[in-house]
Amino acid sequence: MTATLAIGPYNASERPALEETFQAHIVANATEACGLEAATRAEIKAIAYKGHLPFGAAEMDLFPNLGVIANYGVGYDAIDVAAASARSIKVTNTPDVLNDDVADLAIAMWISQGREMRQAEAWVRDGNWATKGDYRLNRKVSASKVGVMGMGRIGRDIADRLAAFKTEVHYHSRSEKQTPGWTYHADPVSLAKAVDFLFVALVGGAATQNYVSKEVIAALGPRGVLINISRGSTVDEEALLDALENGTIAGAGLDVFVGEPKINPRFLTLDNVVLQPHQGSGTVETRAAMAKLQRDNVGAHLAGTALLTPVN
Amino acid sequence: MTATLAIGPYNASERPALEETFQAHIVANATEACGLEAATRAEIKAIAYKGHLPFGAAEMDLFPNLGVIANYGVGYDAIDVAAASARSIKVTNTPDVLNDDVADLAIAMWISQGREMRQAEAWVRDGNWATKGDYRLNRKVSASKVGVMGMGRIGRDIADRLAAFKTEVHYHSRSEKQTPGWTYHADPVSLAKAVDFLFVALVGGAATQNYVSKEVIAALGPRGVLINISRGSTVDEEALLDALENGTIAGAGLDVFVGEPKINPRFLTLDNVVLQPHQGSGTVETRAAMAKLQRDNVGAHLAGTALLTPVN
Repeated sequence: MTATLAIGPYNASERPALEETFQAHIVANATEACGLEAATRAEIKAIAYKGHLPFGAAEMDLFPNLGVIANYGVGYDAIDVAAASARSIKVTNTPDVLNDDVADLAIAMWISQGREMRQAEAWVRDGNWATKGDYRLNRKVSASKVGVMGMGRIGRDIADRLAAFKTEVHYHSRSEKQTPGWTYHADPVSLAKAVDFLFVALVGGAATQNYVSKEVIAALGPRGVLINISRGSTVDEEALLDALENGTIAGAGLDVFVGEPKINPRFLTLDNVVLQPHQGSGTVETRAAMAKLQRDNVGAHLAGTALLTPVN
Repeated sequence: MTATLAIGPYNASERPALEETFQAHIVANATEACGLEAATRAEIKAIAYKGHLPFGAAEMDLFPNLGVIANYGVGYDAIDVAAASARSIKVTNTPDVLNDDVADLAIAMWISQGREMRQAEAWVRDGNWATKGDYRLNRKVSASKVGVMGMGRIGRDIADRLAAFKTEVHYHSRSEKQTPGWTYHADPVSLAKAVDFLFVALVGGAATQNYVSKEVIAALGPRGVLINISRGSTVDEEALLDALENGTIAGAGLDVFVGEPKINPRFLTLDNVVLQPHQGSGTVETRAAMAKLQRDNVGAHLAGTALLTPVN
C-alpha cells in the first residue's frame, strides 16, 4: 500500500531513492500503470513521471485521488496539462537544474559542426595522418552572428555562453527580454536571416510544432547551421532534411528528433550534421539533481506543503 | 630575381598572394631552400616560413642578406631565435589572429570528452538507438574546477570562455596576472591538484619541454582530464599515455602530439581521449588572417618600416 506511483525507466540509483522515500510502486510505463488493480490505483496520490509517452485524460481518470504528476525533465509535453488542471491535478517539472548541461551540449555541437571535429578525429584515428597530410581547413565559429530561438532559461544559458565567444547575439521569443545589448527579432524568419548559427531552445508541445518552419530554415541560407536541443517537434524535420541534403543550409547539430529514438534514417548518412542521442541533460550529476527535484515535489504534495516547481 | 623566399606548404589562396605581392620564390621545405643556387640565396632578404621543421643557424648562414624570418603561426619554436638574433635577423610570428579558433577547439574538446560526444554520435549513427535504449549518463563539465597552464593570450581566451560556463578558474603562469578573481598557483602541481580539467596553453620550445610532467599528470587524479592545444612537447607524453591507459587520470583532449603527424599509436586505441589533427587554427578565416599578417611583416621589412609582430 502506497500513495506514490513512479512510472518510467528509473535507474539503479533512482529506484531505491523512490522506494525508500515514499515506498513508491515503480512500473515501466503508463500502460503498465493503467493495468494496476483499481484498489491500488485508488491509493495513488502522486505520480512521479519519467518518459516521453503521452499521459492524458484517460490515464488520469484511472487515478481518482491523484493530486500531482511530478515530471522528470523540464519539458512536460508528454503530460496533458489542460486535462490535469481540469481535474485539479498539479503538474511539476524539473527546471533549471539541467540548463547548464543542455547549454554545454549546444555549444559543443556548434563548435564541433563548424570545426568538423568528428571528421577530424577520424583523420587522426585511422593512423594515416602522416600519409594524408593536414586535415582540411574548416570554419571559424567565434565572433560570428548567432541567434537563439526561445529566450527562456535554457536559451539564456546558451546565449550567455555564446557571448563569451565574442559573437553578435540575436534572439526571438514571445516578448523582448532584458538582455545585455542583444538584438530582439519579433519574427522568427527575421532572426534566421540575421544569423549564421541558429540555436533552438523553444518549449515543446503543440504551440511550437514546426515553429522552425521551412521558411525559417530557408532564411538561414547556405552558410546557415541549425542547432536543436529542445524537441524534435519544434522543427519541420522534412524541410530540414531536404535543406541539409540539398545544401540550402550548411549543416546542423541535433540532440532531438521527431519520433526518437526511431529517427529518420536520412540523418544517418549526412556528413554535415552532428547527431547526439537526446543526451542534453544526460550527466550523472544533473540526472541526480532532476530525480531529487522530482522527489521533492512529490514529497511536498504528500506533506501538503508548497510545490517547488509547479507548471499549472 | 626576388628578395622573398616562401618556405612551406602554402595553399592555393596563399601562393598567388605571395607571388603577386613579392614575386616570392616558393619552395616546399627548408631542404629545398638550402639547395637553391648561391646567387639566388644571396638575393633573399625575407623568408616567409611555414612548417614545424627546424630552421637554425646552418640554414640562416646560407642566406647572407636575410633580414627577417616571418613565421606563419604564433608558435615559432621551429626557428632558432637566438641564432637569428646573433645574426641580426628579426623573427616575426602571427599572434592574436588565431586565439579565438584555438580557444574554441579547446572548449569543444573539453565538453566533447566529458559528454562522450564521439561515442554518443556513434550510438545514433549505427541506426540502432531504439533497440539499444538511452546512451549512458556521462559527466557534467559546467560549474567544475578548471585550470589553465600558461596565461598568455590564448590561455586568457580559453579562461574567458570557461568563466561563462560558471567554472571556478585557476591558473599557473610565470607571474600572477590581472584576472577577474581567478586563483593563481605559483606551482604547476598545485594547479593540477586544485582542478578537474587542466588546459595547457604554454608556449612551446625547450623551456617548456615536458613542463606538464609525470608529477603534474599524477596530481590531476582519477577524475582529471588534460586538454592540450599548445605543443606536444609541453607534455610528458609517455607519462600521459600511461596515465590514460591505467586510469590514473580520466581522459584527455589533444590537438597536438609529440612527433606529429606520426603520433604514438597507443593513442589510437584509447576511448577516453578526443584526438584532433593539430587543427587549432585551422579555419579558412583564421589561416587567411595568419597568411596576411605574415605577408605584412615581410612587406614591412622590405619597405624598411616597423615590423608588426616581432618576437626578437
